[in-house]
Order: sequence, then C-alpha cells, then structure tokens
Amino acid sequence: MTYPILVLTTGGTFDKQYFDALSEYQIAESMVPKLLQVARVTHPFRTAELMRKDSLELTDADRTAIRTAIEGAPETAIVVIHGTDTMVQTAAELEGLAGRTIVLVGALAPARFAESDAAFNLGMAFAGAQALTPGVYITMNGTVFPAKQVVKDRAQNAFVPKT
Amino acid sequence: MTYPILVLTTGGTFDKQYFDALSEYQIAESMVPKLLQVARVTHPFRTAELMRKDSLELTDADRTAIRTAIEGAPETAIVVIHGTDTMVQTAAELEGLAGRTIVLVGALAPARFAESDAAFNLGMAFAGAQALTPGVYITMNGTVFPAKQVVKDRAQNAFVPKT
Amino acid sequence: MTYPILVLTTGGTFDKQYFDALSEYQIAESMVPKLLQVARVTHPFRTAELMRKDSLELTDADRTAIRTAIEGAPETAIVVIHGTDTMVQTAAELEGLAGRTIVLVGALAPARFAESDAAFNLGMAFAGAQALTPGVYITMNGTVFPAKQVVKDRAQNAFVPKT
Amino acid sequence: MTYPILVLTTGGTFDKQYFDALSEYQIAESMVPKLLQVARVTHPFRTAELMRKDSLELTDADRTAIRTAIEGAPETAIVVIHGTDTMVQTAAELEGLAGRTIVLVGALAPARFAESDAAFNLGMAFAGAQALTPGVYITMNGTVFPAKQVVKDRAQNAFVPKT
Repeated sequence: MTYPILVLTTGGTFDKQYFDALSEYQIAESMVPKLLQVARVTHPFRTAELMRKDSLELTDADRTAIRTAIEGAPETAIVVIHGTDTMVQTAAELEGLAGRTIVLVGALAPARFAESDAAFNLGMAFAGAQALTPGVYITMNGTVFPAKQVVKDRAQNAFVPKT
Repeated sequence: MTYPILVLTTGGTFDKQYFDALSEYQIAESMVPKLLQVARVTHPFRTAELMRKDSLELTDADRTAIRTAIEGAPETAIVVIHGTDTMVQTAAELEGLAGRTIVLVGALAPARFAESDAAFNLGMAFAGAQALTPGVYITMNGTVFPAKQVVKDRAQNAFVPKT
Repeated sequence: MTYPILVLTTGGTFDKQYFDALSEYQIAESMVPKLLQVARVTHPFRTAELMRKDSLELTDADRTAIRTAIEGAPETAIVVIHGTDTMVQTAAELEGLAGRTIVLVGALAPARFAESDAAFNLGMAFAGAQALTPGVYITMNGTVFPAKQVVKDRAQNAFVPKT
Repeated sequence: MTYPILVLTTGGTFDKQYFDALSEYQIAESMVPKLLQVARVTHPFRTAELMRKDSLELTDADRTAIRTAIEGAPETAIVVIHGTDTMVQTAAELEGLAGRTIVLVGALAPARFAESDAAFNLGMAFAGAQALTPGVYITMNGTVFPAKQVVKDRAQNAFVPKT
C-alpha cells in the first residue's frame, strides 16, 4: 500500500529566486513541482502553498496555520518545506499529532542553483514520510533526525545532533 | 545514534557518461561522491565500486559479489547503485541478510544530465537505509517499495507495484 | 541595425538525448530553443530542423539540402548546428554563398548535460553570425575559426588550427 | 592567427552567490574559469579580478582602474564581466583605446543558477572580442551592440537599441 504525500510549502532558501531588477533574493513560486517532475515521481502527492517567508519571519500565527493545515489534511504522510533557521522551532510546534509522519526539510542552497541540496533533501523527505513511524523529523545533511534530537549549527551551516 | 552508510556502485544509467570520440554512452566514474557533496551530506558514509555494468550484463557471479560485499561490511545500512533493468532480480538475490537494511536505487536519466532523477533517488535511498527495518527495498519514482512488491514496467519506463 | 538569425539544426552530439528503454543515445528534439530562452535572447531569430543525424551519417544529399536551405533563406546571418566529426567537410560545401555569414557549431557534450559546451558555443555562433564578414566559420573550443583553417583533432577531441 | 583574450572581472549579477548564513546574495569568486572549463575552451586567455561590486556601487575611480588595466595589458582582445545596471556608463568610459576590441558582458541571472544566461553571454563576448573591429561593445540578450547604441530597459529587464 502506498501513502499519498502532502507537501506544504512555507518558503525559505529552498524556493529563493534572484530578481535582477531589485538586485536581491526573494522567495518565489515553489520549485517542488518541478523537482518532482524531474525526479519522475509517480507516487501520489499534492502540494499546497501556505506562505512564502524566510523562516526568521515566521510568526506564532504562521506556525499555528501549518499545524492546522496538517490536522485538516486527509494525508498522514506530510512533508513541510521550511527555511532552515527556525526549522527546529516549527518542528517542536508540530509534535503530538497522532498518526502523522511529518518531515520538515529545506535547503542550504536554493533549488534554482545548478548545485543545490534541494533535490536530494526532498528525496530524503519523501522516503522518510513513507518509511518512518508517526512523529516529527528533519532530513538535512544526509541524516534522518528525530526533530527533538537536532539543532542547526550556524557556524558550520549544517544540522547536527543536539548534545 | 546515526548509522554509517555503505554505498556500493555497480553501474547502470545512473553513472553513464557520453564519450564523443566513440559517439556512445558508457559507464564512467560514479557520480555518487559528487552528488553527496552537492547535497552537503555530513552523515558518515563510504563508497565502494564493485563493477561498472549495464544491469542487463550482470552475471550470477556479479550478484554473488554484491551479496558477499554486503555480508563482509561492518555497516548495516546499505545503498546499492544499480541499473534499472534487472534491479528487481538482484534485489531478490539479496534477501535474507539478517540485520541489514539494503536499498537498491538507480536512475532513469544519467546523473550527469541537467535534468535527472539521480539526486532525488539517492536522497530517498539514504533516508530509507536509515529509517527502514532490515530487509531489501527499492526507491524509485518517488516510492519506497519493499523489493518483493515491485516490478519495472518497461512500457511506462517506471517502477510500479507488482500485481 | 540588427540582422535576424536563422538557426538550422542537423543533429549531432549537441542534441543527443538518452533513452533508457533502449539504453542508447539518439538525437532528439533540438535544445536550441530552450538554450535561447534560458539566455534571454530577444534578438530576432528563427529555427528550422533539416535532419537529425550523427554527422558521420550525413550524405552528399544532406549537404546539398543544407546549402539549398541557406540559399533560399531571407536571412544573411546563418548558424548551423552540426555534429563535430564532419563539420569541416560540410563547411567546405557551404563556401561561396555571397553575402552570407555562416557559422557552424556543435558540442562535445550534449546540451542536456549539466556540464556542456553547448550554450557557450551557441553564444559564440550567435555573435559570430552578427559580427563576422561574409564567409564560413566554425566556433568551437573558444575560438572563431575561418572554416578553411581548422580541423578536428580526434585524439585531443578538440578543434585546432590546420597546419 | 589567434588573439589571446583578457577577461577582467568586476562583479555584478554574473558572479553572485547566495550565502545562507546571511540570507543574502553577495558577489563571490568568479565563475568565469569554471564556465570556460565546461565550455572546453582551448583558446589562449587569462583572467584578472579587478573588484567584486554591484555595478551600481562602481565609482569613478573603479572605472579608471578598469581603463588602466586595459591600457596596460598586452592583449588587444578584452572581455569585461560587469553588472548590468551601469554597463553602458562604464562602456562610455572605455571608448578611444586604439587597437583594442573591448566587449562588456554580464548576466541577468547568476552563473551559479541552473538556468542562467551567463554561459551563452560569455560565449558571445569571446567570439565578439575575436571577430569585431576595435571599439567598445556589449553582448547581451543575443545581440552584439556597439556600446554607444544600446541602453538597459529596466522595465523589460533587457538591453535594447538606443532610440
């Protein structure tokens, strides 16, 4: 049996685009559908955009909206595209949703770059959402982390086990 | 606790390169290390090349060599890069290795292409090797398949549930 | 004043695609329109496909067809996408067309690869077709060659000055 | 005879990199050597970095430094990588250098993006520096413009003929 996957997008580096007119980066239309097409994904999924924000700008109301979207979804396998800076904080707000396997994932380089971790990370999240027992997880830097056991190390610019 | 991952490469479309002098495709040095670097993987892993073959050319001796390499490895989390045409057959030969989570994975377009499923698929395999209970799996087309429950549909050029 | 550019495609490595079902390379729909879109080209141009062949398979009739297409075109600035193995030979057949600047160009790695010389080479040909005096040229490996002064060195897999 | 090419880099969108720790774009090490390697350029060239600036930040002293670098160079074929916003202004400052063919070029999307005009534009500049008579040119959006005859249209985000 296969579980349909819900991909919720909230913004973050994963979906950043460069706007020359402004000479700056902004979050644009999500690259998730494009990446899933390139990956030739035939697994059932749907995507929904909740917001387009840097994760440092996410409010309590935003986190409530993410939780509410998951609670109201028919799917039990959930992937959340999220900025990396407050991913751990949002993950904590999503604990306790019985029967849901929730995987938060982002990227350290935008998916629009020729060299980005986005496709690999999204693949990890897709597999994790199918393979893991209910709970909240983060898949970054090649590791499947239970969300309570991970922190972002800003100096290393990588997710590492919580000590 | 994190499990170190062993990536065994055997060839297949995943690692095909184009040689202009010959005007044909051949299997070249594996793209796995490059993909893991681009994905900023800090998870412990090692790679070992067993062969460079189209999977249609794999012999019984080759499959025995793959099984032997897994049996002799200290790692319990194993990823096997493999051509897609006989991936299911090789998977069957790898059943019954107690305590090992083995994920076979390949690509429908070479990793050297601008648009390839290789990075996403490798991400799925990495997550699967960490998250799944011991057994043999295939991660293709966005799905984590127990290896006994999947076949390649050549007409669709995709992996589908065995009926 | 700007000169509209005619891009004639004939095949070659430039447009090779990988077909997994057959496990071989074949020439597919030309990547020229995609490359020109990515390059944000607003210069007037049109493209026309003449054939899809390895240049080793081109016949005298094919070369006559290329020459005829150029003679009948309203444009004076012509780019010909061509396989590299017999590019010099075709160029020789296109000499003597008064008032036409003809640039032959190809690629040593397919345009569909993440790392290909196709976009750079096409840029060279576009500029050459506008900037050069009438005649026949080849733009490969970073050099604008008058076609009579260049050969392909197969050992080096590069175009070099004729000695 | 081939003319060695000097590539001077000054910054601009062409070489912008994304730094996650800062969640912003900055100009990084130039992508020119990488692009020339991917393009399999065997033509003689050298590169020199003059500055790493958005072109809106370039001062009169910077423009003098660019002119001085060209005047002091042994090469007569010069490519200048430059931000697009003030490319036309810098070009005007480089007029009148006898015997030099100077081509200014930039990119509307960073070279590090999967879809960028950088490689095509650099190819145009390379060909232009070899093929054009002495003077100052801009190669953007698929056109070879004499520098005095072009402006950047910010609304269209493209270079267009000066009216």
